[in-house]
Amino acid sequence: MKTRAAVAVEAGKPLEIMEVNLDGPRKGEVLVEIKATGLCHTDEFTRSGADPEGIFPAILGHEGAGVVIEVGEGVTTLEVGDHVIPLYTPECRECEYCLNPKTNLCQKVRATQGQGLLPDGSTRFSMLDGTPIHHYMGCSTFANHTVVPEIALAKVRKDAPFDKVCYIGCGVTTGIGAVINTAKVEIGSTAVVFGLGGIGLNVIQGLRLAGADQIVGVDLNDSKVEMATHFGMTHFVNPSKVDGDMVAHLVELTGGGADYTFDATGNVDVMRTALECAHKGWGESIIIGVAPAGAEISTRPFQLVTGRVWRGTAFGGAKGRTDVPKIVDWYMDGKIEIDPMITHKLTLDEINHGFDLMHEGKSIRAVVEF
Amino acid sequence: MKTRAAVAVEAGKPLEIMEVNLDGPRKGEVLVEIKATGLCHTDEFTRSGADPEGIFPAILGHEGAGVVIEVGEGVTTLEVGDHVIPLYTPECRECEYCLNPKTNLCQKVRATQGQGLLPDGSTRFSMLDGTPIHHYMGCSTFANHTVVPEIALAKVRKDAPFDKVCYIGCGVTTGIGAVINTAKVEIGSTAVVFGLGGIGLNVIQGLRLAGADQIVGVDLNDSKVEMATHFGMTHFVNPSKVDGDMVAHLVELTGGGADYTFDATGNVDVMRTALECAHKGWGESIIIGVAPAGAEISTRPFQLVTGRVWRGTAFGGAKGRTDVPKIVDWYMDGKIEIDPMITHKLTLDEINHGFDLMHEGKSIRAVVEF
Ligand SMILES: NC(=O)c1ccc[n+]([C@@H]2O[C@H](COP(=O)([O-])OP(=O)(O)OC[C@H]3O[C@@H](n4cnc5c(N)ncnc54)[C@H](O)[C@@H]3O)[C@@H](O)[C@H]2O)c1
Ligand SMILES: NC(=O)c1ccc[n+]([C@@H]2O[C@H](COP(=O)([O-])OP(=O)(O)OC[C@H]3O[C@@H](n4cnc5c(N)ncnc54)[C@H](O)[C@@H]3O)[C@@H](O)[C@H]2O)c1
Ligand SMILES: [Zn+2]
Ligand SMILES: [Zn+2]
Ligand SMILES: [Zn+2]
Ligand SMILES: [Zn+2]
Repeated sequence: MKTRAAVAVEAGKPLEIMEVNLDGPRKGEVLVEIKATGLCHTDEFTRSGADPEGIFPAILGHEGAGVVIEVGEGVTTLEVGDHVIPLYTPECRECEYCLNPKTNLCQKVRATQGQGLLPDGSTRFSMLDGTPIHHYMGCSTFANHTVVPEIALAKVRKDAPFDKVCYIGCGVTTGIGAVINTAKVEIGSTAVVFGLGGIGLNVIQGLRLAGADQIVGVDLNDSKVEMATHFGMTHFVNPSKVDGDMVAHLVELTGGGADYTFDATGNVDVMRTALECAHKGWGESIIIGVAPAGAEISTRPFQLVTGRVWRGTAFGGAKGRTDVPKIVDWYMDGKIEIDPMITHKLTLDEINHGFDLMHEGKSIRAVVEF
Repeated sequence: MKTRAAVAVEAGKPLEIMEVNLDGPRKGEVLVEIKATGLCHTDEFTRSGADPEGIFPAILGHEGAGVVIEVGEGVTTLEVGDHVIPLYTPECRECEYCLNPKTNLCQKVRATQGQGLLPDGSTRFSMLDGTPIHHYMGCSTFANHTVVPEIALAKVRKDAPFDKVCYIGCGVTTGIGAVINTAKVEIGSTAVVFGLGGIGLNVIQGLRLAGADQIVGVDLNDSKVEMATHFGMTHFVNPSKVDGDMVAHLVELTGGGADYTFDATGNVDVMRTALECAHKGWGESIIIGVAPAGAEISTRPFQLVTGRVWRGTAFGGAKGRTDVPKIVDWYMDGKIEIDPMITHKLTLDEINHGFDLMHEGKSIRAVVEF
């Protein structure tokens, strides 16, 4: 079949909207009609060429929602008409990682996914001239139709709006999951969240959900305050307006350091501040942000010896097929909010404008509707 | 009263054995006759002048065992004749830290302890000419008699031999506690221990106690193999004999990375290797070693984002008054061994020779008996 897609033809170039060929689903695969997709920083990290492991040409996008159109041989858990969210971290429920409650990093299709291929080692996309196009993070949601392994699809309720729950495919789950799966924040905790963008806001609403008492937001951009306050931030700090040491300032504000701190900036200096303003004895700092290639975090080991813990999280520690449908329910039940964070709606033809909005710090989430 | 002590008169100088004045215990304090004391690296870190926070003159030593000789006003939990182990990490059972099950870092006497003073801000030791001598880590076990706050004494059974259980005052508890309190190692785990000295060997016996399946020891010194094997090491790696990357070598040896890794070297490059050879998804690395002043640990944040956890431990996460008596019981019941690790016995007059043995890598523990 043919479908329309935004293709990353070359590193650093705008995406090109074009008709592409799409082969049908093979064994264990599912053809999905994407109804909506968010634009995440990770897409831009690849598009821009900043990711040294980027592969081109490729169809990016990993924050989508859609409907099952066709299932390949042997697919048993999904049928035509099911609503689904593609998962860049799949859940096979069989591998050593899926069977370990401490991790969500299913390894079943990892090797091929990293090469921009489906598990059988081939791609379903090609240009009309036959040039193969790579898949991206196993999702490729910047195409109106895509083929995804069955184990990389979360089945969600049919009354959930695509243009909102697509965001659960990455940002919402990453932020909320960092709080509830990775940090396991307890009621009454104090927390500091660095970066009040699409991820940080979801950390904040995760903290509210978990019953944190104090939720300090840190951002260089004052325009983030209103939205963050709406989602539960109790105190705001703009580092550019703090005289002296940020760690000392935050330790004082939190009465000795925060029980939990989160980096949602991707800046390695911020990651260090986040660790060091965690409470001596028990404070845990969670790295969510993705740092530039080659960047390193550092600290004195004394920071850890005196009881701080340094962790990271990918996809919020969520096991996607199990946890994503629950988060969709939380949204539908009003336990969490998504609508105010979808600040821009675009057509596929306008997708490059979405990356401009991201760079200008104007959007929280831009969503493309097909 | 007067007592004999090894005094660190000046940074970098050998200890001087001399008679010193000792004032009796004040409110909340206890006079202890020290019967035996181990020599730990931390004493040498201070003696040598490597610790920028060292204070002189001082009576070092923090790994002792002895008998209560006199109790000050208001002391209710100890009486004359009790056998005790002084605690450099006290347990007041009242402060925010003592009441938090996540930490053992009691803060009750922290400020004065760091200044080499007792909680009332004064010292009990002085030279015969009246020059005040500082306390050290709240213990000063290199004196035949010392005054210690009640909250910094663990009461232990009277049949336990002083010259063995003194080691529980630091090394044994630090190593075993890192496994059971900080890492909380589960039965069947795989582990790598870097550094097979006085701390590393106790990590190894802690791992055996916790039921670890694979216990890999890493040391530059092949002479450590016999003892480490005795305590439970199942595999040995000498980094100087590994071609290529140590992380890759250890990941392969442990079948994908270790569930738990421990640094007991104090070398920040080793700490990085220890983190990076922990298993993706769930491996935890515990820093026990004390790094040189100013040294920093580094890694790519991706190591944490893909599920590794970086922790540290002080005094093995043990709450001393509660946990030390239990470890003494374990020793007396044969659950753990101490005797083979006490490789040298010295008199107080020979104490400087103990530091030589430490530098030559010849002793695991040298113990001074009074
Ligand atoms: N670990 C994961 O699974 C995962 C998933 C998705 C995204 N991410 C990463 O999370 C990070 C945040 O993503 P996002 O979509 O929220 O980005 P965003 O650009 O929407 O938000 C980042 C925010 O950080 C603020 N900021 C930047 N530098 C700062 C500094 N030095 N101090 C304080 N604030 C600063 C910006 O003003 C902005 O508000 C990115 O690095 C992204 O790649 C990680
Ligand atoms: N965190 C705490 O509460 C605490 C308490 C006591 C001691 N410590 C620290 O623990 C560390 C170990 O103490 P110890 O008494 O066992 O010392 P030790 O000298 O007895 O043992 C250290 C061992 O590490 C080995 N080693 C050194 N460099 C190495 C390298 N690059 N690779 C592999 N092996 C190497 C040495 O050969 C030696 O066997 C010290 O840094 C000490 O200050 C920490
Ligand atoms: Zn994303
Ligand atoms: Zn799996
Ligand atoms: Zn010690
Ligand atoms: Zn206390």
